[in-house]
Amino acid sequence: MDRITIEDVAARAGVSATTVSHVFSARRPVSEATQKNVRQAATELGYRANAVAKSLRMQRTSTVMIVLPDLTNPFYPLFARGVQDTLRPNDYHTLLCNTDSREEEERAFLDDAVSRRLDGVVFTGYWVAPAELLELENAGMAVVNLGDGADGRLDNVLSGDRAASSSLTEYLIERYGPAVALIDGTEGAAASQMRADGFELAHAAAGTVIPPGYLVSEEFTREGGRRGMRRLLDLPTPPRAVFCANDLIALGAMDVARERGLAVPDDIAIAGYDDIEAATLIVPSLTTVRNRSYELGVACGELLLTRMNGEYTGPGRTRLVQAEVVLRQSA
Amino acid sequence: MDRITIEDVAARAGVSATTVSHVFSARRPVSEATQKNVRQAATELGYRANAVAKSLRMQRTSTVMIVLPDLTNPFYPLFARGVQDTLRPNDYHTLLCNTDSREEEERAFLDDAVSRRLDGVVFTGYWVAPAELLELENAGMAVVNLGDGADGRLDNVLSGDRAASSSLTEYLIERYGPAVALIDGTEGAAASQMRADGFELAHAAAGTVIPPGYLVSEEFTREGGRRGMRRLLDLPTPPRAVFCANDLIALGAMDVARERGLAVPDDIAIAGYDDIEAATLIVPSLTTVRNRSYELGVACGELLLTRMNGEYTGPGRTRLVQAEVVLRQSA
Repeated sequence: MDRITIEDVAARAGVSATTVSHVFSARRPVSEATQKNVRQAATELGYRANAVAKSLRMQRTSTVMIVLPDLTNPFYPLFARGVQDTLRPNDYHTLLCNTDSREEEERAFLDDAVSRRLDGVVFTGYWVAPAELLELENAGMAVVNLGDGADGRLDNVLSGDRAASSSLTEYLIERYGPAVALIDGTEGAAASQMRADGFELAHAAAGTVIPPGYLVSEEFTREGGRRGMRRLLDLPTPPRAVFCANDLIALGAMDVARERGLAVPDDIAIAGYDDIEAATLIVPSLTTVRNRSYELGVACGELLLTRMNGEYTGPGRTRLVQAEVVLRQSA
Repeated sequence: MDRITIEDVAARAGVSATTVSHVFSARRPVSEATQKNVRQAATELGYRANAVAKSLRMQRTSTVMIVLPDLTNPFYPLFARGVQDTLRPNDYHTLLCNTDSREEEERAFLDDAVSRRLDGVVFTGYWVAPAELLELENAGMAVVNLGDGADGRLDNVLSGDRAASSSLTEYLIERYGPAVALIDGTEGAAASQMRADGFELAHAAAGTVIPPGYLVSEEFTREGGRRGMRRLLDLPTPPRAVFCANDLIALGAMDVARERGLAVPDDIAIAGYDDIEAATLIVPSLTTVRNRSYELGVACGELLLTRMNGEYTGPGRTRLVQAEVVLRQSA
């Protein structure tokens, strides 16, 4: 059974479809016994209350929230535009919530989405786990998560971070030898973890041991990149090449290389991740991973849309918009 | 009388302060005659219903909406961060609404702010006139407008666009002669108008007549800059220097200069407006106007805050965070 309808639930519960809709919409009173009966039938069939409510167009606010960690990172505005361009023709508003990477802000915005009865949430935060996002679905919202964390229940859009990070690190090891370091982003964030995984995988595949101090964690900002680069260059044996967990970090690393009179890539090679506009404006231009931010946003918007309009009511889906290595001058 | 209190209104209307608060909060029934009486007293004194409601902490949502025309223009994320950093310590949430420069989106988001009973709106749109924003104040919200349009009733934060645009154009005329053109942004937008005003003022001050075709209107995007630059270079007598109404336009103009093998600034000088991060990453680095986006956001946040917490209830205030010309290599 690939699509469960309201009629299936009604048949199993032995009531009319109208009664099922009343149970889930709470628009009309229904006896407790019937409610229990209907809910049980829905659970057994794997039917989602949320989809029922949405398909009946109950309490629609026609509004979707996008929770983002850092709007001043150009990846996110472009991602948000992808979501927005997909939802706008379908008459949805989009509210953007910038958490500045703070856990309490993530939670506060999500609570807000529930209490405002928004129709959907696109989540790209760092801290709230996918399992917790399921609670939003139970509150009647459609939810899509950007990034890994698929336990099969939530809709996820992936960009293949691990594979892309591993490819880029492999390339750096091949070209510059094993002295390849990583300046990672905020510790504990899913994106940081995945890029570190890719970095370590590539070293393992090459049979190299990562020298002590070659994996530093900072923030996903230009300033974080400056701090990380100073730490690496102050090591007794500084690296020959540096993979940065995003392009802002790489811009900061390049600032410090310039400061210290090091030529990029001749003295030290630097690579980033995201391919923001600045990557092609800077000299030397930045070798990076093209994270297809706009397309990732479109994919999130599409998944959300089919849940909100009740077109899809099944288990979590996963979409991959694979990121690719782009070789330029800096490495 | 620099600050009108609820007691002033009560005294003038000949009722108690509690009755005044009931009229504005609509929490308790008050006879129509008394309501009329109180509202008239408040109007005569210039008291704002909104301030009353807020000072009573009625129906607070602790949420502020920022309406922005284009989140992929780095000016706006930094501006939004300035607002957010000012409001967050005071426990306000910030919802960001990206209109993609569309008039219908501006109106839809503002309607949304009213129906959600938000506490405040920071407006940086293109189309809705400041006079219309006053209606939001009457609906009980605090409103701050970024940009010119002060009719003395609304709180405005200005960046001195006209003066800065005029200074930069004067510099270009002085250095490169009178053949200075402008690639302006979206026609009809307030920012476009002010930058064109500054451009024309400088030509008038220099006693030069703007050659036909030297003022083209496109969009505030890199692609708009490309189109505008092609139009200028295809003129029988192309300009010697080009002032671009924002940095994205300037990046597009530089793309076309490169395409056609023109050296910047030796063959054609190019200047921008905003001083986004890319302005210092590009080669040659961009001469531009430093629009202090973060500080503008802080000023908006501060004005809004004093209205929302009832600290200030008077007429519209104006804050100036003056933009300055920054000379670099491109002009």
